[in-house]
Amino acid sequence: MGASIRRLLVGSPLETSQAVHERLTKVKALAVFSSDALSSVAYATEEILLVLMLAGSSALSLSWPIAVAIAILLAIVATSYYQGIHAYPSGGGAYIISRENLGTLAGLVAGAALLIDYVLTVAVSVSAGVAAITSAAPALYAHRVGLGVLFILLVTWGNLRGVRESGTIFAIPTYLFIISFLTMIGTGLFKYVAGQATPLPSTEAIQPVQPLTLFLLLRAFSSGCTALTGIEAISNGVMAFKPPEARNASRTLAAMAVLLVTMFLGITWLARAYGIIPKESETVVSQLARTIFGYESSLYYLIQATTAFILILAANTSFNGFPRLASLMAQDRFLPRQLANLGDRLVFSNGIVILGAIAAALLALFGGSTHALIPLYAVGVFLSFTLAQAGLVRHSLRERQSGWRHTAIINGIGAIATGVVLTIITATKFMHGAWIVVLLIPSMVCTFLTIHDHYEMVRRQLSIHTPDPLPRPVRRHRAIMPISGVHRGTLKALYYAQSVTDDVTAVVVDVDPEQTRRIREQWEEIGTKVPLVVLPSPYRSVQEPLMEYIDQVSASLDKGDVLTIILPEFVPRKAWHHLLHNQTALLLKAALIYRRTKHNEVVVDVPYYLHE
Amino acid sequence: MGASIRRLLVGSPLETSQAVHERLTKVKALAVFSSDALSSVAYATEEILLVLMLAGSSALSLSWPIAVAIAILLAIVATSYYQGIHAYPSGGGAYIISRENLGTLAGLVAGAALLIDYVLTVAVSVSAGVAAITSAAPALYAHRVGLGVLFILLVTWGNLRGVRESGTIFAIPTYLFIISFLTMIGTGLFKYVAGQATPLPSTEAIQPVQPLTLFLLLRAFSSGCTALTGIEAISNGVMAFKPPEARNASRTLAAMAVLLVTMFLGITWLARAYGIIPKESETVVSQLARTIFGYESSLYYLIQATTAFILILAANTSFNGFPRLASLMAQDRFLPRQLANLGDRLVFSNGIVILGAIAAALLALFGGSTHALIPLYAVGVFLSFTLAQAGLVRHSLRERQSGWRHTAIINGIGAIATGVVLTIITATKFMHGAWIVVLLIPSMVCTFLTIHDHYEMVRRQLSIHTPDPLPRPVRRHRAIMPISGVHRGTLKALYYAQSVTDDVTAVVVDVDPEQTRRIREQWEEIGTKVPLVVLPSPYRSVQEPLMEYIDQVSASLDKGDVLTIILPEFVPRKAWHHLLHNQTALLLKAALIYRRTKHNEVVVDVPYYLHE
Repeated sequence: MGASIRRLLVGSPLETSQAVHERLTKVKALAVFSSDALSSVAYATEEILLVLMLAGSSALSLSWPIAVAIAILLAIVATSYYQGIHAYPSGGGAYIISRENLGTLAGLVAGAALLIDYVLTVAVSVSAGVAAITSAAPALYAHRVGLGVLFILLVTWGNLRGVRESGTIFAIPTYLFIISFLTMIGTGLFKYVAGQATPLPSTEAIQPVQPLTLFLLLRAFSSGCTALTGIEAISNGVMAFKPPEARNASRTLAAMAVLLVTMFLGITWLARAYGIIPKESETVVSQLARTIFGYESSLYYLIQATTAFILILAANTSFNGFPRLASLMAQDRFLPRQLANLGDRLVFSNGIVILGAIAAALLALFGGSTHALIPLYAVGVFLSFTLAQAGLVRHSLRERQSGWRHTAIINGIGAIATGVVLTIITATKFMHGAWIVVLLIPSMVCTFLTIHDHYEMVRRQLSIHTPDPLPRPVRRHRAIMPISGVHRGTLKALYYAQSVTDDVTAVVVDVDPEQTRRIREQWEEIGTKVPLVVLPSPYRSVQEPLMEYIDQVSASLDKGDVLTIILPEFVPRKAWHHLLHNQTALLLKAALIYRRTKHNEVVVDVPYYLHE
Repeated sequence: MGASIRRLLVGSPLETSQAVHERLTKVKALAVFSSDALSSVAYATEEILLVLMLAGSSALSLSWPIAVAIAILLAIVATSYYQGIHAYPSGGGAYIISRENLGTLAGLVAGAALLIDYVLTVAVSVSAGVAAITSAAPALYAHRVGLGVLFILLVTWGNLRGVRESGTIFAIPTYLFIISFLTMIGTGLFKYVAGQATPLPSTEAIQPVQPLTLFLLLRAFSSGCTALTGIEAISNGVMAFKPPEARNASRTLAAMAVLLVTMFLGITWLARAYGIIPKESETVVSQLARTIFGYESSLYYLIQATTAFILILAANTSFNGFPRLASLMAQDRFLPRQLANLGDRLVFSNGIVILGAIAAALLALFGGSTHALIPLYAVGVFLSFTLAQAGLVRHSLRERQSGWRHTAIINGIGAIATGVVLTIITATKFMHGAWIVVLLIPSMVCTFLTIHDHYEMVRRQLSIHTPDPLPRPVRRHRAIMPISGVHRGTLKALYYAQSVTDDVTAVVVDVDPEQTRRIREQWEEIGTKVPLVVLPSPYRSVQEPLMEYIDQVSASLDKGDVLTIILPEFVPRKAWHHLLHNQTALLLKAALIYRRTKHNEVVVDVPYYLHE
């Protein structure tokens, strides 16, 4: 029944040979991998404005040069990743590139940074998506945490069904989002140029609470850098493309970068042109769309709906990336091996479930606020960017394939640019939450190393190729069978024991002399040659005398002997019946296993199934 | 370690032969068994006054004739139980007497009524005890539920340590309570007669909200009948007395009845004489003690302290009675057999824990209010009184021992009196909560019968004396050993399997062709004659192909054959290590056991213990 519920929820299992057909076309891949990057235009401008506003309304116009700087950075990083795909057509992204070129430790740092960012992408995107909804429907504002968790559950479920269907589900809203945003930007530009722009009723000028320092400008720049998040998704998922993978992936990346720069600059320019001021209860994009299209217009609602949709689906980028990365790291023995395997829908089910759970918890912890989560966000992204690009530089210098100088220079510029930005982000955001990530990354790296050590240690101990003496064939097999009565279950266990070895001893603990006498009589009656030992129990405990007896027998074994403890057990038909029976066998078994001092003991339940 | 914590909490185990030394002297037994009955004087008068108050202050003086009627009833019931102890020196009370003389069903009804009342005694006594504390320290009123639960935990703990120590712990406060109450009554009477009584500042006369009907008088009488609760405790626990049990028990009962009547009539008379009116925030006894001794006097605090103490310890009566009754009923197979056994401190530990848990839940549910619990209370008490006394009449008529006419008449009067009171209580309290008990008793009786049927059914199925064919010795023993790699754990399991039978087959599921190839090679390398079967798995599931294979082998077995499924398992040293391994063996074992369709299969883990 469990299996059929599972089928209903996640679909029928897929054969391993179907894997290649699950690969994505460029059109679908753009939808699956770029929803994160593209959707960040919905909040990146707002994050810049929120910081500048601290220096008063007049500082808001500085958003344009900051956005241009970010666009340049974006172009550099995209170009660098474009090179990276060709250098590493197998995909794998920052973790693989760093590990192979900069050493294990750098790889683990990149891995930790990426894992953190996948989780944050889910939390940030979903909370921003909910903000788009509550901007248009303020009544839902009070339920934003519940809504966010619900959306995360939905995305998790969609991903458990497998990657091809994800492509289909997500292609339509992604393209709808791109078209509607480009339409808004076009309309906004046209109206502004044509002088038809009707700015929002002007509010009072905001007074500065801080001076306009370089630090503040850098903080605004850092906040806007969230526009770059997700740009690496394609290079981490090259293997999900249809062949030729590298070529398809790099073209998709280029298309994405162009779209991203256009939309980000467009929104930022219009926000300045239309004099938008960020508000707690309504997003900048919502204000802009309302101004351009009019409050009750259906185009306004289309913008809000597609924004919400793409943001919530942006979380999907992580649901592709996180389990793949976790699987790579698990195959390298840095994460539990349960994360390494494909599920029966050809997806990494465990990773998907873990990602959904952590992200939902994080979203709830931060009260569904995008602004509260943003400071944690960019550190990991830029750390992995820097490591990946430094790794690519090293790679070019070592391999010296054709055009290696060109590649090394591009990636070198990328590494330096992202390295500088990483420093800026860490410095300006440290007090606002980045410190959490700065502490988290080294602890995660330690955990990875501990896990790796454990697996190595187990492998060494279990290997048959180490010089320690191997287990030997059994010389003599003894069996002890504790009984609490003579019934059909006892008989079945007795015959089982006799088929295992000739050396069987039954034991009974004398808790009640009357009962013990009856058991002795019945033992005579069944006419077995197996001896019955009666153990005294002055304290009415069954377990203690039995354990002592087993210890004695166990101590008397020679090397190469084995002792089987056979527990007759009757299994009632219905679950509630278990409540009505002393779980002596169960407790005894737990005690025997917990003891685990004796390496030559095996415990066996022989079940007798009741039919009524 | 679990064992040593247990020792610390409940003391060292006691030998069975020590049981007779755990018996109680009359002085200790009075403390242990009568704290419930005696302590009810702390609230019985108040319950009468609370009902009469509905008809206005002027009706309060009717408390005296009502109390006299209750005292007469009490004398009748005590006399009847005095006879009962001699007719049934083995103790057992209403359950045994009803079952033996009126049939199983009557016995079960009495058993259900008694079990309910034991629970209610704990909840009512503890909440009344907390009321005595909060009368003297009003600041604690807000914490009454927490305090109540805490006290229940303490009493539970005391009882788990065993009955002799209970006697010692409870003797001092019980006697202190008796002495201080008798002192208060004496002082009160003297002051009143000497004209030194200084009544409380008179409050406004309370206006009637109901007319003074016969129904109201009967309701007041019903409420006062809680004074009789606990009077049966001694006759249910005769076996806890030192020999001669019956004689010691009946004398203790007589002493208790005299004390109870004196104190109950004394309090009621003084409450009327001093014009006490019941209040929400302060008990009647507290008001009385304050009037007689003065507000800040140490004697006032002594009364409150001993009242609280005896009420909380009164719960102890139930902690003696409930587990004993549950044990008797469990021995008769009407309750789960886990309740039948003495714990290692010679107490019925399971019953004690269950009673504590239910009573604490009930107290919390009713918000720690004595008045809310009282209506549920008396129905069960008087039901068991009536059944017990009717049973004793039947007993006398059947046995016709010397003086049987005398005994039959006394018990007959008792049965009729309590039967009439039962009808009155049920009628007047039905809407206030008695309906819960009226519904609960039949459902409990049904449960008892269902449990009994189950045990009979199991006994019949397991018995070796029924005509069905018995299990036969094993003819042929096959073994299947699923493996996922070739390591030391596999070797150990392989040699174990070969010591069990010559017919061993190893199987591996082909999830990853590369890994399967390696396993095949290593299998060759260890040079065993045991064949290795490779099962295909197009969907990467380990479990399904394996289960199918086992099903096939199982289906091919002849009658008398047995199949052992041997699971090699390595056991990590630390608990957290388990998180890092696929729990394949565990899941497989669960699936095999859950399947339970095959009666000739046994599943064995062969553990290989890692030493690091």
